Amino acid sequence: MEINIDFQKQKSKKYKVYIDELENLRISGKVAIITNPKVCGLHLQRLLEKVSADELYVITIPDGEVYKNSETLDLIYENLFNHKFNRNSTLIAFGGGVIGDMTGFVASTYQRGVNFIQIPTTLLSQVDASVGGKTGINNKFGKNLIGAFYQPQAVYIETSFLDTLSPREFSAGVSEIVKMAVTFDEDFFIWLENANLNKKEDLRVAIQKSVETKAFVVSEDEKEKGVRAVLNYGHTFAHVIENLTKYSHFLHGEAVSIGICMANDLSVVLGFLTQDESERIKEQLKRYDLPVKYKIDDVELFYQHFFLDKKTDQDKIKFILPQGLGNHIIKNNIDKDIVLSILKEYSN
Amino acid sequence: MEINIDFQKQKSKKYKVYIDELENLRISGKVAIITNPKVCGLHLQRLLEKVSADELYVITIPDGEVYKNSETLDLIYENLFNHKFNRNSTLIAFGGGVIGDMTGFVASTYQRGVNFIQIPTTLLSQVDASVGGKTGINNKFGKNLIGAFYQPQAVYIETSFLDTLSPREFSAGVSEIVKMAVTFDEDFFIWLENANLNKKEDLRVAIQKSVETKAFVVSEDEKEKGVRAVLNYGHTFAHVIENLTKYSHFLHGEAVSIGICMANDLSVVLGFLTQDESERIKEQLKRYDLPVKYKIDDVELFYQHFFLDKKTDQDKIKFILPQGLGNHIIKNNIDKDIVLSILKEYSN
Repeated sequence: MEINIDFQKQKSKKYKVYIDELENLRISGKVAIITNPKVCGLHLQRLLEKVSADELYVITIPDGEVYKNSETLDLIYENLFNHKFNRNSTLIAFGGGVIGDMTGFVASTYQRGVNFIQIPTTLLSQVDASVGGKTGINNKFGKNLIGAFYQPQAVYIETSFLDTLSPREFSAGVSEIVKMAVTFDEDFFIWLENANLNKKEDLRVAIQKSVETKAFVVSEDEKEKGVRAVLNYGHTFAHVIENLTKYSHFLHGEAVSIGICMANDLSVVLGFLTQDESERIKEQLKRYDLPVKYKIDDVELFYQHFFLDKKTDQDKIKFILPQGLGNHIIKNNIDKDIVLSILKEYSN
Repeated sequence: MEINIDFQKQKSKKYKVYIDELENLRISGKVAIITNPKVCGLHLQRLLEKVSADELYVITIPDGEVYKNSETLDLIYENLFNHKFNRNSTLIAFGGGVIGDMTGFVASTYQRGVNFIQIPTTLLSQVDASVGGKTGINNKFGKNLIGAFYQPQAVYIETSFLDTLSPREFSAGVSEIVKMAVTFDEDFFIWLENANLNKKEDLRVAIQKSVETKAFVVSEDEKEKGVRAVLNYGHTFAHVIENLTKYSHFLHGEAVSIGICMANDLSVVLGFLTQDESERIKEQLKRYDLPVKYKIDDVELFYQHFFLDKKTDQDKIKFILPQGLGNHIIKNNIDKDIVLSILKEYSN
């Protein structure tokens, strides 16, 4: 005896990403803005000119990746239960990737799910992290190991929040812009070569093109069973670099910049990318003062760290490589010796 | 500037509930059977005659609602991380509702989601809890307050696992069968009146009809925005009774039985149900030795406890009432005095 359960009658999930369109957003019910003290101090007043609610709470959590853990999660839950938040309540993530990831995870699990709005304030979260519904926390075993796919109701990107970003934080976001262009859109890459992201109007175009790319990819493959993995271009190497430097030396986007260069070197050796294309990509990273070098002390140790990544399935490391400009290839059977030969170039 | 994200290209979620069809289930990759010592002792051997895996782990967690908390959750996570479970791994919930709820929640959050199979061993979880994807844990604020909607890949109901169930546990499951019939299917109710669930063949039919009802309801309304709330018939009262008796006096299904009688009384007063229909429902509960009475010491206190329920939105209590046999009505504006008059009948 078999009984079928099919959710095809459910309406398809959809939402919008708005760029510089946040104006008079009125939310009914209880609303919590979840943010950190820095963003709160710099931008809350401006946010409250644009967002209002029947009942508003501001929950401030400590700033930084090191607080993206179950203790901070409990702190947020506790606040929501004490204020009797219910299933019709709304959580607003107001900050960078850490705030977005944690707020999203709370939104997905508080009473089995409440409304969730992303208002990202860093370039990295505006072009990448706030779109696509990846949420989660770190634990002693690694980064983002507990989490959920949970899509927001809407994402509001306000480029004016970037005005106070440090040059380093700004550049860290550029890495992800370069990532989107190299793997999916040659025209976008060529446009980037001729644009200047320090100019407001160029930056807005780059954000738009990045979000369009991300939106296309995640709507094809929400749960990362296929093409979404391409967004990890540069990240396989970056995660090892971040891990070996204890997440304290590089910003995530900086590690990604180095990781992109390593992936490119591998792609050149395998014949998927020309040396000239590789140099053009590196040039775009260097233009924004992103690091492109990292001194590997022990290539074997570096290699072993690939296996800590949750995307490493059994014994196969999944490498995302650019295939020319604007295209990509996923390889999970690259010879260890070839990978080591690339790593050795970074050991001198 | 607006960018649309639409998941309509994603294939619709669907899965099957199999009744007495578990045979030679071979699962690739790492598999963890999550169970409690009692079920493990009684039934693991028989399960392993039917299920095999490349790599199999058995994770035994303490038995009982009181352990459905974040500490037990961490215990499961810890096991999975230590055994390097990855995104292609599978968790099997093997037990009653507590095992199913916790295993499902771990499956939904471990590395943002792994495969999940339900093999329920109690009547209550076979006819209700294992189908529909509600997962979660309790915390100090209440029951199931942290959780997710996460559908399994499949549910395998094996009626032979019920052979060792105590009469009390068996009857507790009958409450939920009566619930399905009264609210959605008059023919099923009339069939119940003429059937005997202590007979194997009748029991199998009742399980099938209950699961078909549940499957219909959740496929219409996965996230409980509408009709799925009807499955809480009897539960609004039951949750208060469980809370006031500290979850130690009644099994959940027993509290539901009393709650059904209370909801019926309310429905009779409001004219949605006849006294005769109410008696016929009560008769089916009494036939299986389910409690239909509960002594309320303080009706005002009982009433205030409705507001602790997470389904109580702001100040409105949502009552699910039978409308004749086989139909239902949701009321969230019933006069407090009318509710109190019903509660008073239980205070003598």
